[in-house]
Amino acid sequence: MTDEPASQTAQLPSTQINRLSERQRHDREALHDVLDSALVAHVAVVREGVPVVLPLLHARDGDRLLLHGSTGGGLLREAAAGAPVTVAVTVVDALVVADSLFESSANYRSAVVFGRCSVVPPEGRLGALRALSDRLLPGRWHEVRLPTPKELAATLVLEMSLEHASVKVRSGPPSPADASAEPPPDGVPLWWGIVPLTQTPGEPVTAPDVPAGTPLPPSVLDLTQRRSRKF
Amino acid sequence: MTDEPASQTAQLPSTQINRLSERQRHDREALHDVLDSALVAHVAVVREGVPVVLPLLHARDGDRLLLHGSTGGGLLREAAAGAPVTVAVTVVDALVVADSLFESSANYRSAVVFGRCSVVPPEGRLGALRALSDRLLPGRWHEVRLPTPKELAATLVLEMSLEHASVKVRSGPPSPADASAEPPPDGVPLWWGIVPLTQTPGEPVTAPDVPAGTPLPPSVLDLTQRRSRKF
Repeated sequence: MTDEPASQTAQLPSTQINRLSERQRHDREALHDVLDSALVAHVAVVREGVPVVLPLLHARDGDRLLLHGSTGGGLLREAAAGAPVTVAVTVVDALVVADSLFESSANYRSAVVFGRCSVVPPEGRLGALRALSDRLLPGRWHEVRLPTPKELAATLVLEMSLEHASVKVRSGPPSPADASAEPPPDGVPLWWGIVPLTQTPGEPVTAPDVPAGTPLPPSVLDLTQRRSRKF
Repeated sequence: MTDEPASQTAQLPSTQINRLSERQRHDREALHDVLDSALVAHVAVVREGVPVVLPLLHARDGDRLLLHGSTGGGLLREAAAGAPVTVAVTVVDALVVADSLFESSANYRSAVVFGRCSVVPPEGRLGALRALSDRLLPGRWHEVRLPTPKELAATLVLEMSLEHASVKVRSGPPSPADASAEPPPDGVPLWWGIVPLTQTPGEPVTAPDVPAGTPLPPSVLDLTQRRSRKF
């Protein structure tokens, strides 16, 4: 970790949730679960008073959050320079179909991490890229060549502490039925409940320039045989 | 639309993408497609110089983006008061498994909308809530009772113009193979390609207090029979 710039002492937003505070989770496991289950993080910085948000692939590695992109990317460069960064990660687990629209919602797991990023130094970059690769497609690291020095030089890897984070989880059935509700006019009893949603891998599509008959690698077989991945 | 506050004339970030500009799309159909395909929007405002991000269910209704939440929600109240708001919506369509980690990526459709929100006035609130309901679970609107005046009063519905938006799309196979790459040491030819990902509805779970034998409603049947929904 680099030394904190002076402005890093600025007040961070409270991670205490005021609304629906029963949904807030304070355990580290819940935070890790959300970060490990989502494929995409939405990364925000402030530019001239306006929030700018970019979707990025991320990985959790222990108690740090890793982000990576091109050294040419504007938002990452601002984050690397010490701008306040907020990372939001959300997994939607189900549609909550209540007996009223007002109570209808979604089951979700959501984490927001506040802080600043540090640039992972050159000697740590390979390890961080491996953590990202292992997270996005376990096993792929061993199937392909190592990154070249030129590729490493063109990749900006940032790390962020998980110290200031807020986690919210909604799970379970819809709120209990509205007892005062009138029966539906057509006499058909009303159904309510939840419809689970999962991110499902489909059939792999081989690139046009791969020699015919090349077998799917273990990494891809593992992913597709799981048939469902908690992104 | 309410009158613009004076501060609304502040400079918005450029929606011109500098990096990978070949991925940028300028047609309105691409923007509508992303907004209609994603279930969750990440909504950002600036609070004391720090970005704050909240996941929200959204809907596109013509050329406006609708957001809703409780009148008690802090972020939405700031948005309703005219703070600069940025909404990011991302759909991941596939893992891109290239022949190198450097070229590995994801196929995605991503939109970022910059601007400010207006509060949908009371006379437009029912129509906006119907647009949200029709988007999240088509047909449900007709299966449940109308929102009560009390529920309408407790719901804050915001609308946002789609005028300042940026859309990026990555699709297709990985970049062509690295011709200079050495053959893998074990002699097994390397596979590369893409693994599609879809958000798939599972078996509906009936709430505990629903009378036994209550049939699934058409809205839920339609969703689950599609078996795959472009969230």
